[in-house]
Amino acid sequence: MREEALKLHKDNQGKLAVVSKVELKDAKDLSLAYSPGVAEPCIEIHKDKEKVYDYTAKGNFVAVVSDGTAVLGLGDIGPEAAMPVMEGKAVLFKSFAGVDAFPICIDTKDVDKIVEVVRLLQPTFGGINLEDIAAPNCFEIEKRLKEICDIPIFHDDQHGTAIVTVAGLINALKIVGKRAEDVKVVVNGAGASAIAVTKLIMGLGVTNIIMCDSKGSLYEGRTEAMNPYKEEMARITNPQNLNVSLAEALVDTDVFIGLSIGNVVTEDMVKNMAKDPIIFAMANPIPEILPELAKKAGARVIGTGRSDYPNQVNNVLAFPGVFRGALDTRARDINEEMKVAASRAIASLITEDELNEEYVIPKPFDPRVAPAVAKAVAIAAMETGVARIQVDPEEVFKRTKELASIK
Amino acid sequence: MREEALKLHKDNQGKLAVVSKVELKDAKDLSLAYSPGVAEPCIEIHKDKEKVYDYTAKGNFVAVVSDGTAVLGLGDIGPEAAMPVMEGKAVLFKSFAGVDAFPICIDTKDVDKIVEVVRLLQPTFGGINLEDIAAPNCFEIEKRLKEICDIPIFHDDQHGTAIVTVAGLINALKIVGKRAEDVKVVVNGAGASAIAVTKLIMGLGVTNIIMCDSKGSLYEGRTEAMNPYKEEMARITNPQNLNVSLAEALVDTDVFIGLSIGNVVTEDMVKNMAKDPIIFAMANPIPEILPELAKKAGARVIGTGRSDYPNQVNNVLAFPGVFRGALDTRARDINEEMKVAASRAIASLITEDELNEEYVIPKPFDPRVAPAVAKAVAIAAMETGVARIQVDPEEVFKRTKELASIK
Repeated sequence: MREEALKLHKDNQGKLAVVSKVELKDAKDLSLAYSPGVAEPCIEIHKDKEKVYDYTAKGNFVAVVSDGTAVLGLGDIGPEAAMPVMEGKAVLFKSFAGVDAFPICIDTKDVDKIVEVVRLLQPTFGGINLEDIAAPNCFEIEKRLKEICDIPIFHDDQHGTAIVTVAGLINALKIVGKRAEDVKVVVNGAGASAIAVTKLIMGLGVTNIIMCDSKGSLYEGRTEAMNPYKEEMARITNPQNLNVSLAEALVDTDVFIGLSIGNVVTEDMVKNMAKDPIIFAMANPIPEILPELAKKAGARVIGTGRSDYPNQVNNVLAFPGVFRGALDTRARDINEEMKVAASRAIASLITEDELNEEYVIPKPFDPRVAPAVAKAVAIAAMETGVARIQVDPEEVFKRTKELASIK
Repeated sequence: MREEALKLHKDNQGKLAVVSKVELKDAKDLSLAYSPGVAEPCIEIHKDKEKVYDYTAKGNFVAVVSDGTAVLGLGDIGPEAAMPVMEGKAVLFKSFAGVDAFPICIDTKDVDKIVEVVRLLQPTFGGINLEDIAAPNCFEIEKRLKEICDIPIFHDDQHGTAIVTVAGLINALKIVGKRAEDVKVVVNGAGASAIAVTKLIMGLGVTNIIMCDSKGSLYEGRTEAMNPYKEEMARITNPQNLNVSLAEALVDTDVFIGLSIGNVVTEDMVKNMAKDPIIFAMANPIPEILPELAKKAGARVIGTGRSDYPNQVNNVLAFPGVFRGALDTRARDINEEMKVAASRAIASLITEDELNEEYVIPKPFDPRVAPAVAKAVAIAAMETGVARIQVDPEEVFKRTKELASIK
């Protein structure tokens, strides 16, 4: 694997190329694509800035922005070393949904500077995918950018994971015959993706959620190892404001969602959960509990982040379609409604007949996913008023299918 | 033309796309191009930052950076309206020399901020092409970026024009049988490109140069309409420190180079020049003097910026090959020696047999140009110590030929 991966990257000098969509073979072509003809779209855009979506590639350009501080499981390896991941992400954007994504690796960890760079690059891009930026900076960067930018800002490590997890949860609840409103959920981990998952689960209608970190539950009044983001979560979750350990929290819990570290959940803990436990153990590469152990302890539906077990929570099910839908409606934002719509679209691809314990989440290469997500996201963008233009959702669906190279 | 240009841009939603250089059709491909295999090049680059050139596309990525303040002849139309030009530039980069260029339109005119954005984007790009940034900001931006960046910074409006003009001058001097060391040159205009042309002509060995603007010659001690850039030029040109008008400056002058406005040179002025006047009248769309009038007044060699006259000074003859040569040597800079090498390479493509008054500059679509320029620039980069790696110049030549779609 190691040698093969290095060879692939070296032989091709990376993975991305920029190509022309127009032919350039003679002076006539040159006079249309460049001087003097190019002045015409320039003049139109100068008269009406929104026309930049008509006459340039901005409306299909997404920046994959990273400072290289939390790359894969490798940590803070710097913006140069982050490039292969950001290029890879762009390859996925293109292959699954025809999005022209471009890596933007920024040589600073300073929040103010990252925010400023992205803000100033808005004329070029139709959307911003934040990637592999360490917490808590990722929260502040996303929050501030969402406030000042009029293009969608989406931190995929948070929201991509959240969308796919919630999709899996929707289907898992169908299998066990429970309603979101009724279940008790424990989220282990209080980092970026754990917080995003928790918020999106709340958008699904779940009210009874306890978040835990290595010090136990987040509750109002806790002083140890807190930060403003955990404070907020302590306020909006844990309705009984319990100070409990993970093991205590799991008693009679319907759903466990792990975004923490390996092997923190024991078979006994699973046995103490409510009937038909649902487990999403997404620590990588070692899950919070190995699926075979969880199964043995009575878990009914089990998902992980790994491709070698059933029900892989893979962001690639979300971000290509999410951005396709956002770009096609020229959305100003990707809001919670659009994310929940994406989750529901992903979940809905598995029919009642197909649905089973080992198939609550579609496979990463399922070509039906991106078009369905794009359509659902476009509808939600229009319904919630963040779309700049109204489009036919069926057209978004068809276009995504056409643009994708994954068929 | 207008409708056709608008249609071309609208039908294609701009002119650029980002594509994958690697295949992605199944989980195996995904595991090499993305997680987990992508960690391998990340780790290598983290250990040795220079490896970013081996394992990523950085070494072939050029940012086409603009603030939209001096776009074509349209002036300060803003960064969104500049996008079609920057995309067009990227199309030319790709078509002529296989460079993956990407538009970076920045939403500020603040020099500090533009410098900071470009500095912070260095991990992503192997070179920076500054484009359509108004003077005097373009000088300061380029100067400061050259000081702080370790990738080449090249303001094409200045240096591209300079390289091609000097190429034309080299051949024009052959026709009239004069040596660079002996000729007197008048440059009309004191803007960005006029200054760059003047400096490059000095690199060719010309010492007797007078620059003029609308107030007459630049000389030391002049107080009217000066700025630090003109002050510098007044110091290093005009050896007799003459305070003269353009008409007076032109008396007995061998070469006129105009980068100013239309119709400022009369037939009488040309008649007063030395024997066999050489005229590069590059104001657009109306030259400083129309070629037919200059000819009538005795001009021997005439070049303009226009495609409908002989000897068009077109930047496309320079920037693709210049960056190809700089990228292939992983150059830290594009210095004066590399620019002069580019000029000589362009000039040398016209053989003594072919050379005539109406053919001192190759045609824009001449496929021999970019490979020759790339090779010459690569050699100069290695000789002047700005190359990070040593390469075989013949390989650079062959590679440029292969990568170009203009054949």
